[in-house]
Amino acid sequence: MITQHAGFSESSSVAVVAASFAHTPDERLKQVMTSLVEHLHGFVKDVEPTEQEWQSAVDFLTDVGHMCDDTRQEFVLLSDVLGVTMLVDAINHRKPAGTTDSTVLGPFHMVESPHRELGANISLDHNGEPCVFAGQARSSDGTPLPGARVDVWQANGAGYYDVQQPDVQPERNLRGLFVADDRGRFWLRTVVPRYYPIPDDGPVGQLLAATDRHPNRPAHIHLIAEADGHAPLTTHVFVEGSPYLDSDTVFGVKRSLIRPVVVVDDPLRAEHYGVANPFRLLEFDVILDPGPGGTRP
Amino acid sequence: MITQHAGFSESSSVAVVAASFAHTPDERLKQVMTSLVEHLHGFVKDVEPTEQEWQSAVDFLTDVGHMCDDTRQEFVLLSDVLGVTMLVDAINHRKPAGTTDSTVLGPFHMVESPHRELGANISLDHNGEPCVFAGQARSSDGTPLPGARVDVWQANGAGYYDVQQPDVQPERNLRGLFVADDRGRFWLRTVVPRYYPIPDDGPVGQLLAATDRHPNRPAHIHLIAEADGHAPLTTHVFVEGSPYLDSDTVFGVKRSLIRPVVVVDDPLRAEHYGVANPFRLLEFDVILDPGPGGTRP
Repeated sequence: MITQHAGFSESSSVAVVAASFAHTPDERLKQVMTSLVEHLHGFVKDVEPTEQEWQSAVDFLTDVGHMCDDTRQEFVLLSDVLGVTMLVDAINHRKPAGTTDSTVLGPFHMVESPHRELGANISLDHNGEPCVFAGQARSSDGTPLPGARVDVWQANGAGYYDVQQPDVQPERNLRGLFVADDRGRFWLRTVVPRYYPIPDDGPVGQLLAATDRHPNRPAHIHLIAEADGHAPLTTHVFVEGSPYLDSDTVFGVKRSLIRPVVVVDDPLRAEHYGVANPFRLLEFDVILDPGPGGTRP
Repeated sequence: MITQHAGFSESSSVAVVAASFAHTPDERLKQVMTSLVEHLHGFVKDVEPTEQEWQSAVDFLTDVGHMCDDTRQEFVLLSDVLGVTMLVDAINHRKPAGTTDSTVLGPFHMVESPHRELGANISLDHNGEPCVFAGQARSSDGTPLPGARVDVWQANGAGYYDVQQPDVQPERNLRGLFVADDRGRFWLRTVVPRYYPIPDDGPVGQLLAATDRHPNRPAHIHLIAEADGHAPLTTHVFVEGSPYLDSDTVFGVKRSLIRPVVVVDDPLRAEHYGVANPFRLLEFDVILDPGPGGTRP
Protein backbone atom coordinates (compact mmCIF):
# COMPACT_ATOMS: atom_id res chain seq x y z
CA MET A 1 0.00 0.00 0.00
CA ILE A 2 1.16 3.53 -0.76
CA THR A 3 1.33 5.68 2.35
CA GLN A 4 2.41 9.23 2.91
CA HIS A 5 5.90 7.83 3.50
CA ALA A 6 6.12 7.93 -0.25
CA GLY A 7 5.56 11.68 -0.17
CA PHE A 8 2.86 13.83 -1.66
CA SER A 9 3.63 15.21 -5.11
CA GLU A 10 1.76 16.06 -8.28
CA SER A 11 2.51 12.62 -9.65
CA SER A 12 1.71 10.67 -6.47
CA SER A 13 -1.31 12.68 -5.27
CA VAL A 14 -4.02 10.27 -6.43
CA ALA A 15 -2.27 7.21 -5.00
CA VAL A 16 -1.45 8.90 -1.68
CA VAL A 17 -4.92 10.34 -1.09
CA ALA A 18 -6.75 7.24 -2.34
CA ALA A 19 -4.65 5.19 0.11
CA SER A 20 -6.01 7.29 2.98
CA PHE A 21 -9.45 5.85 2.21
CA ALA A 22 -8.21 2.26 2.12
CA HIS A 23 -9.68 1.38 5.51
CA THR A 24 -13.19 2.68 4.84
CA PRO A 25 -15.46 -0.02 6.30
CA ASP A 26 -18.26 0.52 3.76
CA GLU A 27 -17.01 -0.88 0.44
CA ARG A 28 -19.34 1.33 -1.61
CA LEU A 29 -18.21 4.51 0.16
CA LYS A 30 -14.60 3.45 -0.37
CA GLN A 31 -15.24 2.99 -4.09
CA VAL A 32 -16.95 6.38 -4.36
CA MET A 33 -14.21 8.25 -2.48
CA THR A 34 -11.44 6.56 -4.45
CA SER A 35 -13.10 7.46 -7.74
CA LEU A 36 -13.79 10.99 -6.53
CA VAL A 37 -10.10 11.50 -5.72
CA GLU A 38 -9.07 10.24 -9.17
CA HIS A 39 -11.46 12.46 -11.07
CA LEU A 40 -11.14 15.52 -8.83
CA HIS A 41 -7.33 15.47 -8.96
CA GLY A 42 -7.56 14.85 -12.69
CA PHE A 43 -9.63 18.02 -13.03
CA VAL A 44 -7.19 20.06 -10.90
CA LYS A 45 -4.18 18.77 -12.86
CA ASP A 46 -5.97 19.54 -16.11
CA VAL A 47 -6.84 23.17 -15.35
CA GLU A 48 -3.94 23.97 -12.98
CA PRO A 49 -5.87 26.57 -10.97
CA THR A 50 -4.03 29.50 -9.46
CA GLU A 51 -4.46 29.87 -5.72
CA GLN A 52 -6.85 32.76 -6.40
CA GLU A 53 -8.95 30.57 -8.73
CA TRP A 54 -9.06 27.83 -6.11
CA GLN A 55 -10.24 30.41 -3.57
CA SER A 56 -12.91 31.57 -6.05
CA ALA A 57 -14.15 27.99 -6.34
CA VAL A 58 -14.33 27.69 -2.55
CA ASP A 59 -16.22 30.99 -2.39
CA PHE A 60 -18.63 29.88 -5.13
CA LEU A 61 -19.45 26.58 -3.40
CA THR A 62 -19.90 28.45 -0.11
CA ASP A 63 -22.35 30.84 -1.78
CA VAL A 64 -24.23 27.88 -3.26
CA GLY A 65 -24.48 26.33 0.21
CA HIS A 66 -25.65 29.54 1.80
CA MET A 67 -28.39 29.88 -0.86
CA CYS A 68 -29.91 26.55 0.21
CA ASP A 69 -32.84 26.55 2.62
CA ASP A 70 -36.12 24.68 3.10
CA THR A 71 -37.54 25.91 -0.20
CA ARG A 72 -34.43 26.42 -2.34
CA GLN A 73 -31.88 23.75 -3.29
CA GLU A 74 -29.08 25.55 -5.12
CA PHE A 75 -26.84 22.46 -5.28
CA VAL A 76 -29.61 20.64 -7.19
CA LEU A 77 -29.77 23.61 -9.58
CA LEU A 78 -25.98 23.39 -9.96
CA SER A 79 -26.26 19.67 -10.68
CA ASP A 80 -29.05 20.46 -13.17
CA VAL A 81 -27.14 23.07 -15.20
CA LEU A 82 -24.02 20.85 -15.30
CA GLY A 83 -26.08 18.00 -16.77
CA VAL A 84 -25.38 15.79 -13.74
CA THR A 85 -29.02 15.41 -12.75
CA MET A 86 -29.92 14.19 -16.24
CA LEU A 87 -26.88 11.89 -16.29
CA VAL A 88 -27.90 10.30 -12.99
CA ASP A 89 -31.42 9.92 -14.39
CA ALA A 90 -30.09 8.27 -17.55
CA ILE A 91 -27.93 5.85 -15.56
CA ASN A 92 -30.80 4.88 -13.27
CA HIS A 93 -33.43 4.50 -15.98
CA ARG A 94 -31.92 2.54 -18.82
CA LYS A 95 -35.10 1.75 -20.71
CA PRO A 96 -35.50 -1.05 -23.20
CA ALA A 97 -36.26 0.14 -26.73
CA GLY A 98 -39.94 0.74 -27.32
CA THR A 99 -40.67 2.21 -23.90
CA THR A 100 -41.10 5.88 -23.09
CA ASP A 101 -37.95 7.79 -22.19
CA SER A 102 -37.57 9.28 -18.75
CA THR A 103 -36.43 12.74 -17.79
CA VAL A 104 -35.82 14.65 -14.58
CA LEU A 105 -38.37 14.93 -11.76
CA GLY A 106 -37.63 18.61 -11.13
CA PRO A 107 -38.24 20.54 -7.92
CA PHE A 108 -41.98 21.25 -8.24
CA HIS A 109 -43.43 17.85 -7.34
CA MET A 110 -43.39 19.05 -3.75
CA VAL A 111 -47.10 18.69 -3.01
CA GLU A 112 -49.38 15.71 -3.53
CA SER A 113 -51.55 15.85 -6.63
CA PRO A 114 -55.30 15.61 -5.86
CA HIS A 115 -57.26 12.65 -7.25
CA ARG A 116 -59.36 13.85 -10.19
CA GLU A 117 -61.89 12.22 -12.51
CA LEU A 118 -60.95 11.64 -16.15
CA GLY A 119 -61.85 14.76 -18.11
CA ALA A 120 -61.50 17.11 -15.15
CA ASN A 121 -60.12 20.58 -15.76
CA ILE A 122 -56.93 21.06 -13.74
CA SER A 123 -56.56 24.71 -14.78
CA LEU A 124 -58.17 26.45 -11.84
CA ASP A 125 -56.83 29.90 -12.73
CA HIS A 126 -57.67 29.71 -16.47
CA ASN A 127 -54.33 31.32 -17.30
CA GLY A 128 -53.30 30.00 -20.70
CA GLU A 129 -54.76 28.58 -23.91
CA PRO A 130 -57.25 25.79 -23.12
CA CYS A 131 -56.08 22.38 -24.28
CA VAL A 132 -57.01 18.72 -23.90
CA PHE A 133 -54.17 16.44 -22.74
CA ALA A 134 -54.82 12.79 -23.56
CA GLY A 135 -53.00 9.52 -24.02
CA GLN A 136 -52.92 5.81 -23.42
CA ALA A 137 -50.80 3.76 -21.02
CA ARG A 138 -49.50 0.56 -22.58
CA SER A 139 -47.00 -2.13 -21.77
CA SER A 140 -44.02 -2.52 -24.09
CA ASP A 141 -45.78 -5.35 -25.97
CA GLY A 142 -48.66 -3.01 -26.79
CA THR A 143 -51.09 -4.31 -24.17
CA PRO A 144 -53.20 -1.47 -22.73
CA LEU A 145 -52.81 -0.92 -18.99
CA PRO A 146 -56.27 -0.35 -17.46
CA GLY A 147 -56.10 1.40 -14.08
CA ALA A 148 -52.65 2.91 -14.69
CA ARG A 149 -52.05 5.93 -12.42
CA VAL A 150 -50.97 9.12 -14.18
CA ASP A 151 -49.78 12.00 -11.99
CA VAL A 152 -49.66 15.28 -13.91
CA TRP A 153 -48.31 18.73 -12.95
CA GLN A 154 -47.31 21.76 -14.98
CA ALA A 155 -46.77 25.52 -15.11
CA ASN A 156 -49.55 27.81 -16.29
CA GLY A 157 -49.67 30.00 -19.41
CA ALA A 158 -47.44 32.52 -17.66
CA GLY A 159 -44.75 29.96 -16.80
CA TYR A 160 -45.41 29.59 -13.05
CA TYR A 161 -46.27 26.60 -10.88
CA ASP A 162 -48.91 27.00 -8.16
CA VAL A 163 -46.30 26.71 -5.38
CA GLN A 164 -44.39 29.66 -6.82
CA GLN A 165 -47.46 31.92 -6.64
CA PRO A 166 -49.38 30.91 -3.50
CA ASP A 167 -51.08 34.31 -3.37
CA VAL A 168 -52.10 34.29 -7.04
CA GLN A 169 -52.90 30.70 -8.04
CA PRO A 170 -55.47 28.45 -6.33
CA GLU A 171 -54.01 25.58 -4.29
CA ARG A 172 -53.20 22.51 -6.36
CA ASN A 173 -53.67 24.45 -9.59
CA LEU A 174 -52.56 22.40 -12.61
CA ARG A 175 -52.04 19.18 -10.65
CA GLY A 176 -54.00 15.97 -10.85
CA LEU A 177 -53.72 12.24 -10.22
CA PHE A 178 -55.76 10.31 -12.78
CA VAL A 179 -56.65 6.62 -13.14
CA ALA A 180 -56.74 5.32 -16.71
CA ASP A 181 -59.97 3.73 -18.00
CA ASP A 182 -60.48 0.07 -18.95
CA ARG A 183 -58.50 0.64 -22.17
CA GLY A 184 -55.62 2.38 -20.43
CA ARG A 185 -56.74 5.80 -21.68
CA PHE A 186 -56.48 9.05 -19.74
CA TRP A 187 -57.66 12.55 -20.67
CA LEU A 188 -58.01 15.85 -18.92
CA ARG A 189 -58.53 19.54 -19.60
CA THR A 190 -55.73 21.99 -18.96
CA VAL A 191 -53.89 24.91 -20.59
CA VAL A 192 -50.80 24.93 -22.78
CA PRO A 193 -47.85 25.53 -20.40
CA ARG A 194 -45.29 28.22 -21.08
CA TYR A 195 -41.48 27.96 -20.94
CA TYR A 196 -39.96 29.40 -17.76
CA PRO A 197 -36.61 30.20 -16.13
CA ILE A 198 -35.17 28.16 -13.28
CA PRO A 199 -34.48 30.35 -10.21
CA ASP A 200 -31.56 32.49 -11.36
CA ASP A 201 -31.15 35.04 -8.58
CA GLY A 202 -28.40 33.01 -6.87
CA PRO A 203 -24.85 31.86 -7.62
CA VAL A 204 -26.03 29.33 -10.23
CA GLY A 205 -27.77 32.17 -12.07
CA GLN A 206 -24.52 34.12 -11.90
CA LEU A 207 -22.68 31.15 -13.40
CA LEU A 208 -25.20 30.95 -16.24
CA ALA A 209 -24.82 34.69 -16.90
CA ALA A 210 -21.02 34.49 -16.83
CA THR A 211 -21.09 31.65 -19.35
CA ASP A 212 -23.63 33.33 -21.64
CA ARG A 213 -26.30 30.71 -20.97
CA HIS A 214 -30.00 31.52 -20.50
CA PRO A 215 -31.85 30.03 -17.52
CA ASN A 216 -34.91 28.74 -19.40
CA ARG A 217 -36.66 25.42 -19.77
CA PRO A 218 -38.93 24.81 -22.77
CA ALA A 219 -42.69 24.34 -22.17
CA HIS A 220 -43.58 20.91 -20.77
CA ILE A 221 -46.05 18.88 -18.75
CA HIS A 222 -44.65 16.57 -16.05
CA LEU A 223 -45.91 13.02 -15.61
CA ILE A 224 -45.29 10.11 -13.31
CA ALA A 225 -46.98 6.99 -14.71
CA GLU A 226 -47.34 3.79 -12.70
CA ALA A 227 -49.00 0.46 -13.41
CA ASP A 228 -48.90 -2.85 -11.57
CA GLY A 229 -46.02 -5.05 -12.66
CA HIS A 230 -44.20 -2.20 -14.40
CA ALA A 231 -41.38 0.18 -13.53
CA PRO A 232 -42.68 3.65 -12.62
CA LEU A 233 -41.88 6.29 -15.24
CA THR A 234 -40.99 9.92 -14.47
CA THR A 235 -40.95 12.06 -17.58
CA HIS A 236 -42.20 15.20 -19.38
CA VAL A 237 -44.01 15.82 -22.62
CA PHE A 238 -42.52 18.87 -24.33
CA VAL A 239 -44.59 21.26 -26.45
CA GLU A 240 -43.42 21.26 -30.06
CA GLY A 241 -42.41 24.74 -31.21
CA SER A 242 -41.67 26.04 -27.72
CA PRO A 243 -38.65 28.33 -27.37
CA TYR A 244 -35.59 26.67 -25.82
CA LEU A 245 -36.29 23.11 -27.01
CA ASP A 246 -32.73 23.15 -28.37
CA SER A 247 -31.17 24.59 -25.24
CA ASP A 248 -33.05 23.45 -22.12
CA THR A 249 -30.83 24.77 -19.35
CA VAL A 250 -31.14 21.46 -17.45
CA PHE A 251 -30.70 19.27 -20.59
CA GLY A 252 -34.03 17.52 -19.98
CA VAL A 253 -35.28 17.40 -23.59
CA LYS A 254 -35.30 14.17 -25.54
CA ARG A 255 -36.65 14.30 -29.08
CA SER A 256 -38.90 11.31 -28.36
CA LEU A 257 -40.75 13.40 -25.76
CA ILE A 258 -41.76 16.33 -28.02
CA ARG A 259 -45.41 16.46 -29.17
CA PRO A 260 -47.42 19.05 -31.09
CA VAL A 261 -50.48 20.87 -29.80
CA VAL A 262 -52.91 20.40 -32.69
CA VAL A 263 -56.30 21.94 -33.37
CA VAL A 264 -58.91 19.20 -33.79
CA ASP A 265 -62.25 19.74 -35.53
CA ASP A 266 -64.27 16.65 -34.53
CA PRO A 267 -67.63 17.11 -32.73
CA LEU A 268 -67.70 13.53 -31.41
CA ARG A 269 -64.27 13.72 -29.82
CA ALA A 270 -65.07 17.21 -28.48
CA GLU A 271 -68.14 15.72 -26.80
CA HIS A 272 -66.10 12.82 -25.40
CA TYR A 273 -63.58 15.27 -23.88
CA GLY A 274 -66.33 17.64 -22.72
CA VAL A 275 -65.08 20.66 -24.67
CA ALA A 276 -66.40 22.92 -27.41
CA ASN A 277 -65.48 22.02 -31.00
CA PRO A 278 -62.89 22.73 -32.41
CA PHE A 279 -60.33 22.26 -29.61
CA ARG A 280 -56.59 22.07 -28.98
CA LEU A 281 -55.18 18.62 -28.24
CA LEU A 282 -51.83 17.39 -26.92
CA GLU A 283 -51.52 13.60 -27.18
CA PHE A 284 -48.86 11.55 -25.44
CA ASP A 285 -48.94 7.79 -24.89
CA VAL A 286 -46.80 6.27 -22.13
CA ILE A 287 -45.20 2.91 -22.77
CA LEU A 288 -44.09 1.28 -19.52
CA ASP A 289 -41.39 -1.30 -18.95
CA PRO A 290 -42.57 -4.59 -17.40
CA GLY A 291 -39.12 -4.81 -15.80
CA PRO A 292 -38.31 -5.75 -12.23
CA GLY A 293 -39.67 -2.65 -10.52
CA GLY A 294 -36.69 -0.54 -11.40
CA THR A 295 -34.10 -0.40 -14.09
CA ARG A 296 -30.75 -0.85 -12.35
CA PRO A 297 -29.03 -4.12 -13.22
CA MET B 1 -20.96 22.16 -32.81
CA ILE B 2 -22.95 19.59 -30.91
CA THR B 3 -26.23 21.00 -29.61
CA GLN B 4 -29.06 19.45 -27.72
CA HIS B 5 -30.57 18.56 -31.09
CA ALA B 6 -28.23 15.59 -30.88
CA GLY B 7 -30.01 14.47 -27.73
CA PHE B 8 -28.73 13.95 -24.21
CA SER B 9 -27.62 10.42 -23.42
CA GLU B 10 -24.98 8.69 -21.32
CA SER B 11 -22.66 8.62 -24.29
CA SER B 12 -23.29 12.20 -25.46
CA SER B 13 -23.54 13.92 -22.08
CA VAL B 14 -20.04 15.44 -22.02
CA ALA B 15 -20.29 16.78 -25.57
CA VAL B 16 -23.80 18.18 -25.09
CA VAL B 17 -23.10 19.90 -21.77
CA ALA B 18 -19.67 21.16 -22.81
CA ALA B 19 -21.29 22.68 -25.91
CA SER B 20 -23.57 24.72 -23.65
CA PHE B 21 -20.47 26.55 -22.41
CA ALA B 22 -19.15 27.24 -25.93
CA HIS B 23 -20.14 30.90 -25.88
CA THR B 24 -18.51 31.77 -22.55
CA PRO B 25 -16.83 35.14 -23.18
CA ASP B 26 -13.96 34.50 -20.74
CA GLU B 27 -11.70 31.88 -22.36
CA ARG B 28 -10.30 30.73 -19.03
CA LEU B 29 -13.75 30.21 -17.52
CA LYS B 30 -14.76 28.30 -20.65
CA GLN B 31 -11.72 26.04 -20.29
CA VAL B 32 -12.44 25.42 -16.60
CA MET B 33 -16.14 24.64 -17.14
CA THR B 34 -15.40 22.34 -20.08
CA SER B 35 -12.84 20.41 -18.06
CA LEU B 36 -15.17 20.29 -15.04
CA VAL B 37 -17.93 18.74 -17.16
CA GLU B 38 -15.54 16.10 -18.52
CA HIS B 39 -14.19 15.07 -15.13
CA LEU B 40 -17.48 15.39 -13.22
CA HIS B 41 -19.39 13.29 -15.76
CA GLY B 42 -16.49 10.85 -15.77
CA PHE B 43 -16.86 10.46 -12.02
CA VAL B 44 -20.64 9.96 -12.25
CA LYS B 45 -20.26 7.39 -15.04
CA ASP B 46 -17.59 5.59 -13.05
CA VAL B 47 -19.55 5.22 -9.81
CA GLU B 48 -23.08 5.14 -11.29
CA PRO B 49 -24.75 6.65 -8.23
CA THR B 50 -28.29 5.65 -7.36
CA GLU B 51 -30.72 8.55 -7.09
CA GLN B 52 -30.53 8.17 -3.30
CA GLU B 53 -26.72 8.40 -3.39
CA TRP B 54 -26.93 11.50 -5.58
CA GLN B 55 -29.33 13.02 -3.04
CA SER B 56 -26.90 12.14 -0.24
CA ALA B 57 -24.13 13.97 -2.09
CA VAL B 58 -26.38 17.04 -2.48
CA ASP B 59 -27.24 16.88 1.23
CA PHE B 60 -23.55 16.53 2.19
CA LEU B 61 -22.49 19.55 0.13
CA THR B 62 -25.41 21.53 1.56
CA ASP B 63 -24.29 20.66 5.10
CA VAL B 64 -20.73 21.72 4.23
CA GLY B 65 -22.05 25.05 2.96
CA HIS B 66 -24.19 25.62 6.02
CA MET B 67 -21.17 24.95 8.28
CA CYS B 68 -19.28 27.87 6.70
CA ASP B 69 -19.30 31.24 8.43
CA ASP B 70 -16.87 34.06 9.14
CA THR B 71 -14.60 31.87 11.26
CA ARG B 72 -15.12 28.41 9.75
CA GLN B 73 -14.43 27.38 6.16
CA GLU B 74 -15.69 23.82 5.80
CA PHE B 75 -15.12 23.71 2.01
CA VAL B 76 -11.43 24.46 2.62
CA LEU B 77 -11.36 21.59 5.13
CA LEU B 78 -13.01 19.36 2.52
CA SER B 79 -10.40 20.44 -0.04
CA ASP B 80 -7.70 19.74 2.57
CA VAL B 81 -8.78 16.18 3.43
CA LEU B 82 -9.19 15.32 -0.26
CA GLY B 83 -5.61 16.42 -0.95
CA VAL B 84 -6.79 19.18 -3.29
CA THR B 85 -5.30 22.03 -1.27
CA MET B 86 -1.88 20.35 -1.32
CA LEU B 87 -2.22 19.59 -5.04
CA VAL B 88 -3.01 23.25 -5.82
CA ASP B 89 -0.01 24.20 -3.67
CA ALA B 90 2.22 21.78 -5.54
CA ILE B 91 1.07 23.08 -8.93
CA ASN B 92 1.60 26.70 -7.94
CA HIS B 93 4.98 26.20 -6.30
CA ARG B 94 7.10 24.02 -8.54
CA LYS B 95 10.47 24.61 -6.89
CA PRO B 96 13.82 24.06 -8.53
CA ALA B 97 15.91 21.37 -6.84
CA GLY B 98 17.92 22.67 -3.92
CA THR B 99 15.26 25.04 -2.61
CA THR B 100 13.00 24.44 0.37
CA ASP B 101 9.71 22.66 -0.36
CA SER B 102 6.45 24.47 0.23
CA THR B 103 3.38 23.21 2.01
CA VAL B 104 -0.08 24.55 2.78
CA LEU B 105 -0.74 27.91 4.45
CA GLY B 106 -3.49 26.55 6.67
CA PRO B 107 -6.34 28.53 8.25
CA PHE B 108 -4.53 30.00 11.28
CA HIS B 109 -2.54 32.79 9.62
CA MET B 110 -5.58 35.00 10.22
CA VAL B 111 -3.91 37.68 12.34
CA GLU B 112 -0.77 39.66 11.63
CA SER B 113 2.35 38.46 13.40
CA PRO B 114 3.95 41.12 15.63
CA HIS B 115 7.48 42.29 14.81
CA ARG B 116 9.89 40.76 17.32
CA GLU B 117 13.63 41.01 17.95
CA LEU B 118 15.85 38.04 17.18
CA GLY B 119 15.96 35.80 20.26
CA ALA B 120 12.54 36.93 21.55
CA ASN B 121 10.37 34.37 23.29
CA ILE B 122 7.09 33.98 21.38
CA SER B 123 5.63 31.56 23.97
CA LEU B 124 3.62 33.95 26.10
CA ASP B 125 1.66 31.21 27.88
CA HIS B 126 4.67 28.93 28.59
CA ASN B 127 2.58 25.91 27.64
CA GLY B 128 5.01 23.32 26.27
CA GLU B 129 8.63 22.25 26.40
CA PRO B 130 10.92 25.27 25.89
CA CYS B 131 12.89 25.11 22.67
CA VAL B 132 15.08 27.33 20.50
CA PHE B 133 14.05 27.57 16.85
CA ALA B 134 16.88 28.74 14.59
CA GLY B 135 17.97 28.70 10.99
CA GLN B 136 19.53 30.55 8.11
CA ALA B 137 17.91 32.03 5.00
CA ARG B 138 19.96 31.41 1.85
CA SER B 139 19.52 31.72 -1.87
CA SER B 140 19.70 28.55 -3.93
CA ASP B 141 23.38 29.19 -4.75
CA GLY B 142 24.21 29.20 -1.03
CA THR B 143 24.45 32.98 -0.62
CA PRO B 144 23.11 34.09 2.78
CA LEU B 145 20.13 36.45 2.65
CA PRO B 146 20.65 39.25 5.22
CA GLY B 147 17.42 40.99 6.18
CA ALA B 148 15.18 38.10 5.08
CA ARG B 149 11.75 38.28 6.75
CA VAL B 150 10.62 35.14 8.57
CA ASP B 151 7.00 35.01 9.76
CA VAL B 152 6.45 32.21 12.30
CA TRP B 153 3.27 30.85 13.90
CA GLN B 154 2.45 27.62 15.68
CA ALA B 155 0.24 25.76 18.17
CA ASN B 156 1.27 25.47 21.80
CA GLY B 157 2.23 22.34 23.75
CA ALA B 158 -1.47 21.45 24.04
CA GLY B 159 -2.06 21.68 20.28
CA TYR B 160 -4.01 24.98 20.16
CA TYR B 161 -3.39 28.24 18.31
CA ASP B 162 -4.01 31.53 20.13
CA VAL B 163 -7.05 32.31 17.97
CA GLN B 164 -8.68 29.06 19.05
CA GLN B 165 -8.37 29.95 22.73
CA PRO B 166 -8.91 33.72 23.00
CA ASP B 167 -9.92 33.38 26.66
CA VAL B 168 -6.93 31.20 27.60
CA GLN B 169 -3.94 32.31 25.53
CA PRO B 170 -2.52 35.84 25.39
CA GLU B 171 -3.10 37.71 22.12
CA ARG B 172 -0.52 36.93 19.43
CA ASN B 173 0.82 34.01 21.47
CA LEU B 174 3.31 31.96 19.44
CA ARG B 175 3.46 34.41 16.54
CA GLY B 176 6.35 36.57 15.43
CA LEU B 177 7.79 38.35 12.42
CA PHE B 178 11.60 38.28 12.50
CA VAL B 179 14.28 39.94 10.37
CA ALA B 180 17.38 37.83 9.74
CA ASP B 181 20.78 39.21 10.77
CA ASP B 182 23.62 40.19 8.44
CA ARG B 183 24.41 36.51 7.82
CA GLY B 184 20.78 35.59 7.08
CA ARG B 185 20.39 33.93 10.47
CA PHE B 186 17.24 33.95 12.57
CA TRP B 187 16.60 32.54 16.06
CA LEU B 188 13.86 32.73 18.63
CA ARG B 189 12.63 31.05 21.77
CA THR B 190 9.40 29.07 21.72
CA VAL B 191 7.95 25.70 22.81
CA VAL B 192 7.75 22.40 20.98
CA PRO B 193 4.30 22.37 19.30
CA ARG B 194 1.95 19.45 19.69
CA TYR B 195 0.00 17.61 16.97
CA TYR B 196 -3.69 18.62 16.79
CA PRO B 197 -6.96 17.73 15.07
CA ILE B 198 -8.49 19.90 12.38
CA PRO B 199 -12.04 20.98 13.33
CA ASP B 200 -13.99 17.73 13.11
CA ASP B 201 -17.40 18.60 14.54
CA GLY B 202 -18.89 19.21 11.07
CA PRO B 203 -19.66 17.20 7.93
CA VAL B 204 -15.96 16.87 7.01
CA GLY B 205 -15.35 15.31 10.43
CA GLN B 206 -18.24 12.93 9.74
CA LEU B 207 -16.66 11.99 6.42
CA LEU B 208 -13.33 11.29 8.14
CA ALA B 209 -15.09 9.12 10.74
CA ALA B 210 -17.07 7.22 8.09
CA THR B 211 -13.84 6.48 6.20
CA ASP B 212 -11.90 5.44 9.31
CA ARG B 213 -9.51 8.41 9.06
CA HIS B 214 -8.29 10.41 12.06
CA PRO B 215 -8.47 14.23 11.92
CA ASN B 216 -4.93 14.94 13.12
CA ARG B 217 -1.98 16.90 11.81
CA PRO B 218 1.53 16.12 13.08
CA ALA B 219 3.38 18.75 15.15
CA HIS B 220 4.75 21.62 13.05
CA ILE B 221 5.80 25.26 13.00
CA HIS B 222 4.52 27.43 10.14
CA LEU B 223 6.81 29.83 8.27
CA ILE B 224 6.52 32.35 5.50
CA ALA B 225 9.99 33.43 4.39
CA GLU B 226 10.58 36.38 2.08
CA ALA B 227 13.70 38.04 0.72
CA ASP B 228 14.20 40.66 -1.96
CA GLY B 229 14.58 39.17 -5.42
CA HIS B 230 13.25 35.78 -4.34
CA ALA B 231 9.90 33.99 -4.50
CA PRO B 232 8.15 33.99 -1.11
CA LEU B 233 8.02 30.58 0.55
CA THR B 234 5.10 29.26 2.62
CA THR B 235 5.98 26.06 4.44
CA HIS B 236 6.16 24.16 7.75
CA VAL B 237 8.93 22.47 9.67
CA PHE B 238 7.64 19.18 11.10
CA VAL B 239 8.85 17.77 14.42
CA GLU B 240 10.62 14.44 13.94
CA GLY B 241 8.98 11.69 15.97
CA SER B 242 5.57 13.39 16.17
CA PRO B 243 2.55 11.14 15.88
CA TYR B 244 0.78 11.30 12.49
CA LEU B 245 3.84 12.20 10.38
CA ASP B 246 2.81 9.27 8.17
CA SER B 247 -0.84 10.20 7.99
CA ASP B 248 -1.29 13.98 8.12
CA THR B 249 -5.00 14.36 7.45
CA VAL B 250 -4.32 17.24 5.02
CA PHE B 251 -1.32 15.52 3.33
CA GLY B 252 0.98 18.45 4.16
CA VAL B 253 4.09 16.46 5.18
CA LYS B 254 7.13 16.26 2.94
CA ARG B 255 10.09 14.28 4.20
CA SER B 256 12.39 17.19 3.39
CA LEU B 257 10.56 19.32 5.96
CA ILE B 258 11.02 17.03 8.99
CA ARG B 259 13.65 18.06 11.59
CA PRO B 260 14.60 16.67 15.01
CA VAL B 261 14.39 18.55 18.28
CA VAL B 262 17.84 17.90 19.76
CA VAL B 263 19.27 18.59 23.21
CA VAL B 264 22.36 20.76 22.91
CA ASP B 265 25.00 21.06 25.65
CA ASP B 266 27.03 24.10 24.62
CA PRO B 267 27.35 27.07 27.02
CA LEU B 268 28.48 29.50 24.28
CA ARG B 269 25.48 28.76 22.03
CA ALA B 270 23.17 28.84 25.06
CA GLU B 271 24.47 32.32 25.83
CA HIS B 272 24.02 33.40 22.19
CA TYR B 273 20.39 32.23 22.25
CA GLY B 274 19.80 33.64 25.74
CA VAL B 275 18.81 30.33 27.34
CA ALA B 276 20.12 28.11 30.14
CA ASN B 277 22.47 25.30 29.14
CA PRO B 278 21.66 22.56 28.06
CA PHE B 279 18.72 23.46 25.82
CA ARG B 280 16.42 22.01 23.15
CA LEU B 281 17.05 23.15 19.57
CA LEU B 282 15.07 22.82 16.34
CA GLU B 283 17.09 23.95 13.32
CA PHE B 284 15.63 24.64 9.90
CA ASP B 285 17.33 26.54 7.09
CA VAL B 286 15.18 28.07 4.33
CA ILE B 287 16.56 28.05 0.80
CA LEU B 288 14.71 30.53 -1.40
CA ASP B 289 14.26 30.52 -5.16
CA PRO B 290 15.63 33.59 -6.96
CA GLY B 291 12.85 33.06 -9.51
CA PRO B 292 10.61 35.67 -11.03
CA GLY B 293 8.57 36.51 -7.94
CA GLY B 294 6.39 33.48 -8.25
CA THR B 295 6.68 30.00 -9.59
CA ARG B 296 3.99 29.67 -12.27
CA PRO B 297 5.42 29.39 -15.75
